[in-house]
Amino acid sequence: MSVKKGSRSQAVFTLGELARRFGATIKGDPEVPIAGVESLAGARTGQLSFVTGPRHRGEASASEASALVAPPSLEDLSFPLLVHSNPYLLFARIAGLFQEPLRLNEGIHPTAHVSEEAEIGPGVRIGPLAHVGPGSRIGAGSSICGTAYVGSDVRIGSQCLLHPGATVLDRCVMGDRVIIHSGTVIGSDGFGYTLDEAGSHFKIPQTGIVQIDDDVEIGSNCGIDRATFDRTWIQKGTKIDNLVQIAHNVVIGEHCILVGQVGISGSTRLGRYVILAGQVGLADHVEIGDGTRIGAKSGVAHSIKAGQDMIGIPAMPQKQWFKNLVHFQRLPQYRDEVRELRRRVQELEARLNREDR
Amino acid sequence: MSVKKGSRSQAVFTLGELARRFGATIKGDPEVPIAGVESLAGARTGQLSFVTGPRHRGEASASEASALVAPPSLEDLSFPLLVHSNPYLLFARIAGLFQEPLRLNEGIHPTAHVSEEAEIGPGVRIGPLAHVGPGSRIGAGSSICGTAYVGSDVRIGSQCLLHPGATVLDRCVMGDRVIIHSGTVIGSDGFGYTLDEAGSHFKIPQTGIVQIDDDVEIGSNCGIDRATFDRTWIQKGTKIDNLVQIAHNVVIGEHCILVGQVGISGSTRLGRYVILAGQVGLADHVEIGDGTRIGAKSGVAHSIKAGQDMIGIPAMPQKQWFKNLVHFQRLPQYRDEVRELRRRVQELEARLNREDR
Amino acid sequence: MSVKKGSRSQAVFTLGELARRFGATIKGDPEVPIAGVESLAGARTGQLSFVTGPRHRGEASASEASALVAPPSLEDLSFPLLVHSNPYLLFARIAGLFQEPLRLNEGIHPTAHVSEEAEIGPGVRIGPLAHVGPGSRIGAGSSICGTAYVGSDVRIGSQCLLHPGATVLDRCVMGDRVIIHSGTVIGSDGFGYTLDEAGSHFKIPQTGIVQIDDDVEIGSNCGIDRATFDRTWIQKGTKIDNLVQIAHNVVIGEHCILVGQVGISGSTRLGRYVILAGQVGLADHVEIGDGTRIGAKSGVAHSIKAGQDMIGIPAMPQKQWFKNLVHFQRLPQYRDEVRELRRRVQELEARLNREDR
Repeated sequence: MSVKKGSRSQAVFTLGELARRFGATIKGDPEVPIAGVESLAGARTGQLSFVTGPRHRGEASASEASALVAPPSLEDLSFPLLVHSNPYLLFARIAGLFQEPLRLNEGIHPTAHVSEEAEIGPGVRIGPLAHVGPGSRIGAGSSICGTAYVGSDVRIGSQCLLHPGATVLDRCVMGDRVIIHSGTVIGSDGFGYTLDEAGSHFKIPQTGIVQIDDDVEIGSNCGIDRATFDRTWIQKGTKIDNLVQIAHNVVIGEHCILVGQVGISGSTRLGRYVILAGQVGLADHVEIGDGTRIGAKSGVAHSIKAGQDMIGIPAMPQKQWFKNLVHFQRLPQYRDEVRELRRRVQELEARLNREDR
Repeated sequence: MSVKKGSRSQAVFTLGELARRFGATIKGDPEVPIAGVESLAGARTGQLSFVTGPRHRGEASASEASALVAPPSLEDLSFPLLVHSNPYLLFARIAGLFQEPLRLNEGIHPTAHVSEEAEIGPGVRIGPLAHVGPGSRIGAGSSICGTAYVGSDVRIGSQCLLHPGATVLDRCVMGDRVIIHSGTVIGSDGFGYTLDEAGSHFKIPQTGIVQIDDDVEIGSNCGIDRATFDRTWIQKGTKIDNLVQIAHNVVIGEHCILVGQVGISGSTRLGRYVILAGQVGLADHVEIGDGTRIGAKSGVAHSIKAGQDMIGIPAMPQKQWFKNLVHFQRLPQYRDEVRELRRRVQELEARLNREDR
Repeated sequence: MSVKKGSRSQAVFTLGELARRFGATIKGDPEVPIAGVESLAGARTGQLSFVTGPRHRGEASASEASALVAPPSLEDLSFPLLVHSNPYLLFARIAGLFQEPLRLNEGIHPTAHVSEEAEIGPGVRIGPLAHVGPGSRIGAGSSICGTAYVGSDVRIGSQCLLHPGATVLDRCVMGDRVIIHSGTVIGSDGFGYTLDEAGSHFKIPQTGIVQIDDDVEIGSNCGIDRATFDRTWIQKGTKIDNLVQIAHNVVIGEHCILVGQVGISGSTRLGRYVILAGQVGLADHVEIGDGTRIGAKSGVAHSIKAGQDMIGIPAMPQKQWFKNLVHFQRLPQYRDEVRELRRRVQELEARLNREDR
């Protein structure tokens, strides 16, 4: 590996180096230099791209990439190749080598406010105008970017990344390698009130926390509320997109995917590997089983077992939804059929009446 | 009351003290010490929990709580009890005693930027890296947490709380005891344009303000736009969840509840005690009467009178929606019935034709 | 023009001055002083309001405005008038004269963090506690308000406005006169993962940028993700409301309107003058043609040609949606009709059977 002159972070690897590093089979010249990764259409000389199946053949043939990552089924492509059974995964791993690193200061920036009562681990970076409150602990190698806010008595593990303007409020807890994007709020109060004698909404104190386990990533401008008691809990490996709302006491299992603008009401629980598509809403106190997938814009009012594909408002099995939808679209036709039947029945009645006479 | 050793804020009360303080009837030992509140399942020795009705009997019997708040109908439970006609409200009030206070600095933190032209009332706390612009007035006892932003010429009443990263823009006005959660923006420009001669969207200046009355609470990452003229107005006691969008010139009456991800278009008006469930959308220039409740994910295009329960896209009376839904689900069956009728009519026709021959 | 005593920014113009300045025809006294603009209902003496058509006649007659902007068809109104073929546009232009300017400091506020490696153009204002990272360039006359965040290697054109708490992340690019409202995040990571051998979601590096062209305005608390490769691109003159989610690699054409809480999935492309109403969701890899309008709350799973009016989940032509909706509402009636037909067919069958006997 060598570093390109005049570039801040740009590395160059040979195809052979990449093959050895990531355990891929090489096909073609192992000395091809790779200085970056790109899409098939965008790649230029010196860049690596990827194909995952036969539908990419056409686009690949027009690509200017210097080499491709490809599955064994596409070994015949006339490019230098890194052959791998999961080309997209291999490509993603290689892409990480070339990613522009965040330009963070070492240590604690002088304009940051870090409480003397905070414990800051080794290698932690805290950016300009960031805030870390008293009693908080930041684990080794974590980065709190400029303008991010960590409240009091927060626990942040190692190798975490809080992007600029991310907010983690008092007493919340997160594991290792957690990524929180800008504008997201972890630990705002749950939404709970009860009417008092005067007809005003009396606020239920929200005394719990948010717990976020290892390898969770949460997109920008989400709101994750703290629990009334105990914890709102996002388990290991779950990934959450932008503008998602998670209410108090929700539990989200491991390795779930929550797409943009999803909303989950209080105390609802998701199993593992649940997928919620964009703008889905879940009612409170609902349970969603492992591996269940819910289509975009669905509304879920009742619990759903494991392994289901559901969609609609209210959510129903995907097959049923599409069937009902076809019927819905045909309603004008059905109406016409009923009218025609009525006409024919009338005629039959008239005919019989005539014959009876 | 005594303070537990080694704890920062943890108070201990006897059951008798709590009964006297909040006007509850005591049943059992008044000397039971209470050091915290918890859910039935989570409570341990020394903690108080609550039951509201017979469905809690089972869970209560397994609870390790030292005492319960209970309604008169559950006086027979074998726990020391605080008996009250509204146990959930009483419990919420007691919970407030045990709530972990925010760890705020006294006065104005040296890293905050507070304009010399701002008027800061007695007992006001302004956190690290917070901003208060010129001409703004912050009332007695209010807290502007770290990284919160108060613009110019803002009026904030007494005992308000702006959480970290909350933003209140120029000239907006709020009453007393208002709570704004992190990431929420009060007073961004309303969304108004008109096409100019060149086919570009020309921005309509948004010259109004947002007015927020006493005891309003607004969740995290909401957007509340200032009025084109005059004011966007959120009246006394209304509570708003996370990620809610309120457009320019909207008026929300007293004591409304707006659940997460609700969106309200321009100039729409809500009466008092209106409830909008999660992800509801209201069109512009619509009026919603007092006490009307609108179900999750509904879309409202027309005004609705007081006291209605509505749901659906478009919103219709709840009963009708559920009835139509049943029919919708039965569409395949109806289709089959129509087909069968057609077959029978055909047969009748053929029979008559045969007989006529 | 004169400046009113005791006011910070309040200007006064005569009607004649306004007519000359904006090319309107005057009717009535050109010496009428105008010190502000207001709605018909809110206007008081000294203020200008506007009417656009005959439906405003009634409200106008009760208005206390000192003068009105009116179309030629309303020249007979008994007010001093500025007559113009596009009264709303003229009014918006005049309103700009009276708008309260933002109270920004000159130059760079001492509490802001501006990297020494940033290039700051002439006349740029950077507010308290704002952040500008290394390698970033801010064009002439742009304003970065207090607590706004500009990352590293960002390009911002001239006369741009980043409101308090707006965030523009590394390497993103914007043209001239771009406005970004508070809480909005430009350049968070796109949402892309692939399962690895262990069943964990492996993050696809998001190496692209967001490009925002001239005259774009983006509301508060939006999330605009950077591209996986290349760019997420918002073209000239497009206006985006609050809480909108734009995924990686989306391309939005010129002069589009995206209303609050819209969500657009990855790689979807919009033409020019597309209008998406509130809470609309678009699937990934969809194309929407020029001038197409999509009604509130719609869900779009497939590409749509130019010039269509679509609505519904899934989106269909507006006419068809309303027709289907009528049928949907009539389902109980259709069910009754089918039942009645069945009864009549049964009767016919019985009758024929009797006669056959």
